[in-house]
Amino acid sequence: MELFYAHKVSDGIVYLDAEESAHCVRVLRHRAGDVISVTDGSGSLLCCEILDASPKEVSARVVSEQAGWGAHPYFLRMAVCPTKNIDRFEWFVEKAVELGVDEIVPLIGDHSERRSVRTDRLQRIAVSAAKQSLKAAVPQIAEPISVKDFVVQVGRVAAVPKPAECQSVCPDFRLIAYCSDDVAPRGSIVDALAAAGDGVSADGEEKVAVVTILIGPEGDFSQDEVRAALDAGFIPVHLGPSRLRTETAAITAVEAVYLNLGISASPYDSSRK
Amino acid sequence: MELFYAHKVSDGIVYLDAEESAHCVRVLRHRAGDVISVTDGSGSLLCCEILDASPKEVSARVVSEQAGWGAHPYFLRMAVCPTKNIDRFEWFVEKAVELGVDEIVPLIGDHSERRSVRTDRLQRIAVSAAKQSLKAAVPQIAEPISVKDFVVQVGRVAAVPKPAECQSVCPDFRLIAYCSDDVAPRGSIVDALAAAGDGVSADGEEKVAVVTILIGPEGDFSQDEVRAALDAGFIPVHLGPSRLRTETAAITAVEAVYLNLGISASPYDSSRK
Repeated sequence: MELFYAHKVSDGIVYLDAEESAHCVRVLRHRAGDVISVTDGSGSLLCCEILDASPKEVSARVVSEQAGWGAHPYFLRMAVCPTKNIDRFEWFVEKAVELGVDEIVPLIGDHSERRSVRTDRLQRIAVSAAKQSLKAAVPQIAEPISVKDFVVQVGRVAAVPKPAECQSVCPDFRLIAYCSDDVAPRGSIVDALAAAGDGVSADGEEKVAVVTILIGPEGDFSQDEVRAALDAGFIPVHLGPSRLRTETAAITAVEAVYLNLGISASPYDSSRK
Repeated sequence: MELFYAHKVSDGIVYLDAEESAHCVRVLRHRAGDVISVTDGSGSLLCCEILDASPKEVSARVVSEQAGWGAHPYFLRMAVCPTKNIDRFEWFVEKAVELGVDEIVPLIGDHSERRSVRTDRLQRIAVSAAKQSLKAAVPQIAEPISVKDFVVQVGRVAAVPKPAECQSVCPDFRLIAYCSDDVAPRGSIVDALAAAGDGVSADGEEKVAVVTILIGPEGDFSQDEVRAALDAGFIPVHLGPSRLRTETAAITAVEAVYLNLGISASPYDSSRK
């Protein structure tokens, strides 16, 4: 199936931007009256009937809506220091969206060689990956923030945005993955997430774990940053025996959450599509 | 630390090729008498003293040898259909090596759009990734083979190469990940690997699980291929709820093995390097 991304929804009418409209009308040859699948990135699959098949701006009427489409049973916030080679960070964004992530926060660490990122470009990659992997919720790319400011912000529980379906009773897991035991001994991320999984199943269906994971730059976090994170309630974890690049460490953390908290959800089946 | 790759080892002397030699002598300014870390890709870390610091071909004497350096506690063979866009498959090779893989078999499936690969180029990527992630064993890139020929070959147990440290008593796990329950119901790859983990721990240290995982092309395996794999003893598995690209599915399988069978090994610690 083809999933279109609406840049505007108002009064039950969705509007596709010029690029999406041209793809819909010129490439896929859709006409007024055709029914297409649309998302506005908020999590619902919108079944829509095309009103105006303009290659500049397609408009379509919402016929039906399916909430939580392509959703995962947890809220994952990945706070990652962008790599010196931005291609590697952009690759991480694509893969994280495919697997399932809710927010990506570019972190600037004491040892970061890259101190700026184009969040608009990363957001476009997130939209494209969400469409390709048929997810109706497009993860948010936050503005860059320093490691120390971020952990203080998350440390203030009130400042942690929770997913709509999840109240303050949601179990909140904060992990920092780094490459040494010199500040504090680390447990494996799998053991740390086992608690999250138990917490969810014990709490029942309607609550989801909120997981925040910090991944450092090529030079790892500074000891000051690790101490600041531990003070803010982050649990120190390791990602196993292999020496991983920053983007590989970040995707390994996303996979650990996906394979431990998400795998039990209804498996993808292409014959259902 | 810097790990050099020796293209030849003979009578206790290692030889670096022109590219490695130039990097060693011109970039890192090593001289005769310097001690460098070298691997010939077979799994041992060789501590060597440079005899001839020629930028054309450095030769060095092996002073000491550490076997199984950067090794993982399983033998993983990934049989994956190369993607239409080869960059995505090359990315998979790099990431799989970083995490830990022993053999990568490019598969040609009934639905494969790409029917050839340059294995020499993939092998160079594997060498580079092994050096970067400090693994003394460089995974082998096999020649391309059709899905049906491969499953028949693996089906003949005698034809399955086992790792040196692993005797025929090694538990042998064969999984095929695909995107539909239409041929046979699938269990999660995590549940399938739990058995592998138990098998290993029950059998004790000296034995490792041999895991072979099949990943199909963009169009998935054909039903005939799935039936042939099941006939050859492959267990049908799913990779969770998300719709994943071929290379993401392949790396998710590698991560599932790494996070379930490898995570308990001594964690990477940069302060030890």
